[in-house]
Amino acid sequence: MIILKLERKNKMPLFRQIFQQLKRLIENNTLKPGFRMPSTRTLAEKHGINRSTVYKAYEELWALGYMESRPGSYSVVRKRQKIATPEQKSKQGLIQWETISSDVGLTLHHAYQELKSRLPLIKETFDAAGKPDVINFASLDLDPRLFPIEDFRRCLNTVLVEQGGKILRYGEGAGYKPLREYIARRLRVHGISANPDEIVITNGCQNAIELVLKFLTVPGSKVATESPTYTNILPLLKYFKTDIIGIPMKPDGMDLDYLREVLSRETQKPAFVYTIPNFHNPTGITTDQAHRERLLALCEAYEVPLVEDGFEEEMKYYGKVPLPIKSMDRKQVVIYMGTFSKVLFPGIRIGWIAAENKLIERLEAIKKFSDLSTNTLLQAALYEFCEQSHYNRHVKRMHREYRKRMHTALTGLKEHLSGFDRVSWTEPAGGYLIWVKLRDAGIDRETLKQVFIRNGVTIMPGTFFYPDSTLLSPNTNTSHQYFRLSISTLNENEIREGILRLAKAISKIYSHEGHEGARREEEKKIRSY
Amino acid sequence: MIILKLERKNKMPLFRQIFQQLKRLIENNTLKPGFRMPSTRTLAEKHGINRSTVYKAYEELWALGYMESRPGSYSVVRKRQKIATPEQKSKQGLIQWETISSDVGLTLHHAYQELKSRLPLIKETFDAAGKPDVINFASLDLDPRLFPIEDFRRCLNTVLVEQGGKILRYGEGAGYKPLREYIARRLRVHGISANPDEIVITNGCQNAIELVLKFLTVPGSKVATESPTYTNILPLLKYFKTDIIGIPMKPDGMDLDYLREVLSRETQKPAFVYTIPNFHNPTGITTDQAHRERLLALCEAYEVPLVEDGFEEEMKYYGKVPLPIKSMDRKQVVIYMGTFSKVLFPGIRIGWIAAENKLIERLEAIKKFSDLSTNTLLQAALYEFCEQSHYNRHVKRMHREYRKRMHTALTGLKEHLSGFDRVSWTEPAGGYLIWVKLRDAGIDRETLKQVFIRNGVTIMPGTFFYPDSTLLSPNTNTSHQYFRLSISTLNENEIREGILRLAKAISKIYSHEGHEGARREEEKKIRSY
Repeated sequence: MIILKLERKNKMPLFRQIFQQLKRLIENNTLKPGFRMPSTRTLAEKHGINRSTVYKAYEELWALGYMESRPGSYSVVRKRQKIATPEQKSKQGLIQWETISSDVGLTLHHAYQELKSRLPLIKETFDAAGKPDVINFASLDLDPRLFPIEDFRRCLNTVLVEQGGKILRYGEGAGYKPLREYIARRLRVHGISANPDEIVITNGCQNAIELVLKFLTVPGSKVATESPTYTNILPLLKYFKTDIIGIPMKPDGMDLDYLREVLSRETQKPAFVYTIPNFHNPTGITTDQAHRERLLALCEAYEVPLVEDGFEEEMKYYGKVPLPIKSMDRKQVVIYMGTFSKVLFPGIRIGWIAAENKLIERLEAIKKFSDLSTNTLLQAALYEFCEQSHYNRHVKRMHREYRKRMHTALTGLKEHLSGFDRVSWTEPAGGYLIWVKLRDAGIDRETLKQVFIRNGVTIMPGTFFYPDSTLLSPNTNTSHQYFRLSISTLNENEIREGILRLAKAISKIYSHEGHEGARREEEKKIRSY
Repeated sequence: MIILKLERKNKMPLFRQIFQQLKRLIENNTLKPGFRMPSTRTLAEKHGINRSTVYKAYEELWALGYMESRPGSYSVVRKRQKIATPEQKSKQGLIQWETISSDVGLTLHHAYQELKSRLPLIKETFDAAGKPDVINFASLDLDPRLFPIEDFRRCLNTVLVEQGGKILRYGEGAGYKPLREYIARRLRVHGISANPDEIVITNGCQNAIELVLKFLTVPGSKVATESPTYTNILPLLKYFKTDIIGIPMKPDGMDLDYLREVLSRETQKPAFVYTIPNFHNPTGITTDQAHRERLLALCEAYEVPLVEDGFEEEMKYYGKVPLPIKSMDRKQVVIYMGTFSKVLFPGIRIGWIAAENKLIERLEAIKKFSDLSTNTLLQAALYEFCEQSHYNRHVKRMHREYRKRMHTALTGLKEHLSGFDRVSWTEPAGGYLIWVKLRDAGIDRETLKQVFIRNGVTIMPGTFFYPDSTLLSPNTNTSHQYFRLSISTLNENEIREGILRLAKAISKIYSHEGHEGARREEEKKIRSY
């Protein structure tokens, strides 16, 4: 016999009171497993309440597993396994996720930990040092002050109002067709002829790289990249168990004699050659037309796909930059990648691959099964943004702005660093990056970082960009004499001030080095006695 | 000596006229490679134009590789490789993409072709048949008429106006933190306790599955799934070179005796067990509390991760559905997946994984290097949408709508199909799916599809959902007697009319089968003479 104490004046609804009390009776074992519950009618009549109220309570008990309702029969109490409260969850779960995985998964985890460990450079370290005005030459994010937020917002509204539900369903695997058509038209500006069916939209350029790796490599494949190169491709190459062949960067680009030797010597051809011909990350170097032609000819001769990463193609604000290698690609060996991240805003996460249709079809299939489709809403808004000429206008504005900013940076470097004869840097033809070399600095990466931090400025140490870098094995230490400056998030004043601090830091490095050198000389002397 | 013919009245800017004429002279070899170009000053003075106009033309020639400018010296003509026009691109490129790839890439390509071949069912076939009013029981997309477009649009505007640039930069690898916090709170409604750092946002549920496969499997790993199961997991499992162990579905869910036998017998433990306990895709079956407890206990006993796909968790419109298995997961063996696709709209491409933090950290790393981050803009808008209680209200509306729709479907089936004693179907406890069995239909998948198409209605043949299905090897043919009905895109009227057509088609199948059967009987007789 169940007696419930129901209070009609209670704020808690009646059905919930019934539920709570029955639940307690079951939990404290007053009602034992197997106990036949009264029918909803019986219980309702006894308490003078609506039958549906009791039913509602029973439904909850059923859902939570406190009762079993047998079709056409009475419900009985069952012993349910209790919900795990936060305290009840074991601190150490049953499965050792740290060791269960394939080593490939761990490679990325390791790399990500390393990557995250760099972030303090940009945030916490400075806050702690009481220098919130740190000038960030480390990040290759973009300057939010230049984002065309209002125009983009209006485009979002337009497509939602005009197209509504259509663009909120699953999208095409290859990406929103009007956007692919626009990209095809835009590529013509850069001399590339591609049809919309030779383009697949990706979740940014990183995702484009991953798709190509998924399709072109198997464990043990070789991949040739410039050395140094884009830092976030390195963990991926390891993850896919490829062997990285680093081709040294020379002042005019990848060493093509070295590459030719690799291509002719290797018994196993590289799965592809990865290159960033414009405003190379991290060195800022742009290759000339002759270099591009020779690189293409080499890839054609050895029938090796050439992955051309045009991530900053649009940022040719000095004008004098050759057309992409893809523009000459008669034999369809070039896989071209582009992105809106480095000219519009990174958060849009829209990039693309342009290549022969047979390859695109296959990359599209891989994309399809990895996420069904990229969201159509942002693609449609982006298309609207381009179609309304906002994109053209924005690119022009970016050109004006960064022409000035890069000029300020290069002028500042000349003014404040040309006094150091052991310091040199690249003069980029566009983009955001400058590569600085400190000859005989005599310090390690960590010290390098710290000296800059102490002077209120961050940079990206060169080691991050080498295939054999510390990104993959944190304890090695090479090429500490390079670092990357990015002006992508800074305005002219910030750049000016930043370069001053940079110069201060560098002067300390060399006086420190002199100091260190002197100490070492001293030690040598002592030992030689 | 170069003589240009410049027309000031021409609509074409002067610099472009200069560029065009010089380009032509170089291309037709009048100006040969190595020819020393006049200085900009000389050319400008001769034609009485501004020097900067000539400079602009030279810049273009330089960019296009028609000239080499040597620093501090004259420019010379160079023979450039011409841009490849569409006609010049070879029809068959140098590289045979069809054969270059790893077989794993080809698996997906093959599967995608198959997937695309189903689309005509939904579109072209019907248009061709002059039946644009086809009723689509095949698609598990959502009904755009129910999308809360206006509310979502306002949320997009709010976050763009209030946060602007902040949400247009690269986002956190694990996903937008406020959204993870909201999901954690929402999961509590379903009895799951998870902290935001036990959640990683993914590009929809498909992407969640891929992340788990990336981390938990190596080639040769075994994975246990229900059979039938979610069709788009099958190509992925093949792509990752896993062996699929199909656990038969019984009326109350995965056959747990069979699973136990697999777990105890297999020398190599499955990397994980994949289950859809609510409104199972494709069968619509919901397991009860006891089944859930036993499944969890099995996975704990054998220390095998349990991937719980809660893709329609929110669609419990009949109330009586047990809490997720994850709610009881004291020992942290459950990897729970959710998505906004099946209750809000699929185009948002936002899903998540909730699991032990150590695992989430590793999945986050893999996600990071596959696309850097999911776009923050839509995550922030979605958070705003949830925070403003739009999400709660929308879920309630979906419940009201689909409770009616499912009722209409089940009533219709009973009314029009209970006359066929060889036809039976599941009665789902929520969600969108009904699984229909045609006993002894005696036709193949293709005929099945065609009969429905001819009657103006589409369904999803059961074969697509089996691990050994035609999706992976198009020429085998099994279990043709099942098909899936999805009511997700249809309103009550459409469902009513659709079921009528369905009944018509089924009556034809059985009369055809009767016919066929009779013919076969006839043949048998003839042979037995």
